[in-house]
This record gives sequence, structure tokens and C-alpha cells, in this order.
Amino acid sequence: MKGLFITFEGIDGSGKSTQMDLLADRLAELGVPVLQTREPGGPPIAEAIRHLLLDTANSAMLPRTELLLYCASRAQHTGEWILPALAAGKTVLCDRYFDSTFAYQGAARSLDIQQILILTEFATFNTVPDLTFLLDIPVSDGMARIKKRNLDRLELEHNDFRELVRAEYLNLAKQNPKRFVVLDASLSPAAIHTQIIQTVLTRLGVSSD
Amino acid sequence: MKGLFITFEGIDGSGKSTQMDLLADRLAELGVPVLQTREPGGPPIAEAIRHLLLDTANSAMLPRTELLLYCASRAQHTGEWILPALAAGKTVLCDRYFDSTFAYQGAARSLDIQQILILTEFATFNTVPDLTFLLDIPVSDGMARIKKRNLDRLELEHNDFRELVRAEYLNLAKQNPKRFVVLDASLSPAAIHTQIIQTVLTRLGVSSD
Repeated sequence: MKGLFITFEGIDGSGKSTQMDLLADRLAELGVPVLQTREPGGPPIAEAIRHLLLDTANSAMLPRTELLLYCASRAQHTGEWILPALAAGKTVLCDRYFDSTFAYQGAARSLDIQQILILTEFATFNTVPDLTFLLDIPVSDGMARIKKRNLDRLELEHNDFRELVRAEYLNLAKQNPKRFVVLDASLSPAAIHTQIIQTVLTRLGVSSD
Repeated sequence: MKGLFITFEGIDGSGKSTQMDLLADRLAELGVPVLQTREPGGPPIAEAIRHLLLDTANSAMLPRTELLLYCASRAQHTGEWILPALAAGKTVLCDRYFDSTFAYQGAARSLDIQQILILTEFATFNTVPDLTFLLDIPVSDGMARIKKRNLDRLELEHNDFRELVRAEYLNLAKQNPKRFVVLDASLSPAAIHTQIIQTVLTRLGVSSD
């Protein structure tokens, strides 16, 4: 049986990693086989591309270059890890996937959406997540949470950029209501986790008892 | 006045670099402003992508990843270096450009040509060379010339692959007769250079005296 492909989306500081970890732990307890991964990244070649994308030294990177590097990383990640894991019946949890590209490179960098769509279909081998959790949070709250980290190249973008990203995420959720579950990321981690695990177990047809 | 964009294509060992150097030196003597560059590579971000592409450690790289990385490198190279140089009136000499992608990733890796075309238009900002010199040489002769080098990931491909690449180059030349000049790369470097410089000076409207 093909596994479930679940992605987590949201601006920096929305708590995606925390929720992925909580979900992965709970699924492991329930004996559900899981691959937990992130974008950009995953297998070594995709991680090397991630390093180029996030390196603060690469400030001269053009929007087209950035988009193509995300797609290159995604192609390797999807072909080498995600599709084989799904085929083996694993549930795949991925921190960011193509919705990030529409939100960040599309809405916020003003690249052509039709072009991003074509590139995305190619890079993903036409793979679409079964379920996408959007952790929605006001930009100022997200920033407050990450202000103590060392910021990478993309995190250094200013807040107007993040507002565009947040708005595009909500737009994508509205356009894909069957795939997206929008969560209020200002709630407690435990409260958010409860919503996530209930949704996932229903989809998996697994009892939580 | 916009400069002339000249590319050099051919399999490894065909003598592209030698001919580019000879042409660059001669144009410099004649006072023609030149940018001499290569793909994958050029500006630092594109060179970093080149490193990923040629690293023998990256043997797990999927054909789609490879294609997208070439396009990412090309987008940065074209936007940051080639288009500004042409706009400043320079003649740009480039060792490989998109024809290499059609020959290597298209014909030899069996990726969809229509997909490569769409990606190429995006990565090049719809830029097409004014003149392309194809240095054509039998595969065995090209290999004999490079056998003393340390081979990179792509040079390690076997000879059947190179035969497909050579055939696709000749096919591209046939399809684009106004842009391509096919040269017999088994001739002496001096004899090839004479054909190249005459063609270039005619296009530039410069006297060689």
C-alpha cells in the first residue's frame, strides 16, 4: 500500500519543525513507518544544493537561479527519497515542499506562476502531497520566535516579503481545500498537535487507542 | 551597439578551449572588447553549481536534477555576466551553452526535448547565440586527447554516450544552419583558427589588416 505524503508549510517561526517532531514520535509509537525529511534538502546532493541556497555569501543570486536550484533539490529529493519511501508504504513527513516555492519564489519574488507550475511538475515527477498542514501565524509573532537564531540568507528578507508569503500560503489553502488544513500557529504546541494527529490518523485509518 | 554572442560546442577533446583562447587573443590584438567565459560556470554562484555537477562523488544525481542544475547555473551566468557584457558592446566567447544541454541531457540522457526547450528559454532569458562553432571530431580521437587529464563525473561517461552527443550536435547544426559553423576538429589548431577568425571578423565588420 502506498504511504501518505504529508507536508508542513508556514513562514519561519511558525513551529513546523516542532509539530513534525511531535507527529513523527506519535506515529512511531503507533508503529506507523515514517520518513521525516525537509526541503530544501534530504539526500546528500539535495543538501549540497540547500547549502548554496541558504549561504549568506550568495547575495547576488538571481530569482531565476533560486527557483531552478529549489527545483533541482526537489527533483533529487523526490526521486531518490520521497517516491521510494511512499512506494514502500511509509508515511512521509516533509518540512516544506512545492507550496513554499509558490509562496516564496512566486508571490514574493514575482516570478511567473505558470512557469513555476511547469518547473514544479517536472521537479516533482508530478507528485502532489496528500495532506498539507499550513501553520499560520502573524509575521511579527513568527519573527519574535526566530530572532535568537543565526539567520540564513532567506530569513534575512524583510517583513514585507513575509507578509506576501503568508498571504500567498492562505491563498493556496483556499484554492486547495481538500489538501490543506490551516492551523492557528499561535495556539500551544500541544493543542496544534492534537488537531494534526487526529487528522492524520483519520486519513491513515489508524485508531489512536 | 550590442556585442556578438559566440559559443563553442563539441565533445571533450575537440579543442574548444584552445580555439577560444586563440580567438580571444586575436580579438584583443584588434582592439575588440571581449568577455571569455565557460559553462557550467562564470560568476561565483554558477561556479559553485559547476562544482556540484562535476564532482565525481555525486554519482547518485538524477537526470532531472542534472538538467535543473545546468539551467540554474546558466540563469545566473546569463543574467549576471553575459547579458550585461553584450549590452556594454562586448563580444562574448562562451565554452558551451544551451546546445550542450540538448546534446548531453536531451539526446544522451533521454530527457524530453520540449521540457528542455521550456527550461532553456527560462534559464537564458530567451537569449540565443549569434554564432556557434561546432568542433566536430570522432569520439575515439577526442578521447585520445583527454586521456591524460583527471576525468570529472561527466567525462567518465562511456563512449556510446559520446556518440549520441556527437550525433545530436550535428543534428542541431543541421537544424540551425545560420547560427552554426561546423569545423573539422581533426585539422591543425592554426587551420581551424583561420576559419574561425575569418567568420568572426566578417560578422563583426572588422578588417583583419
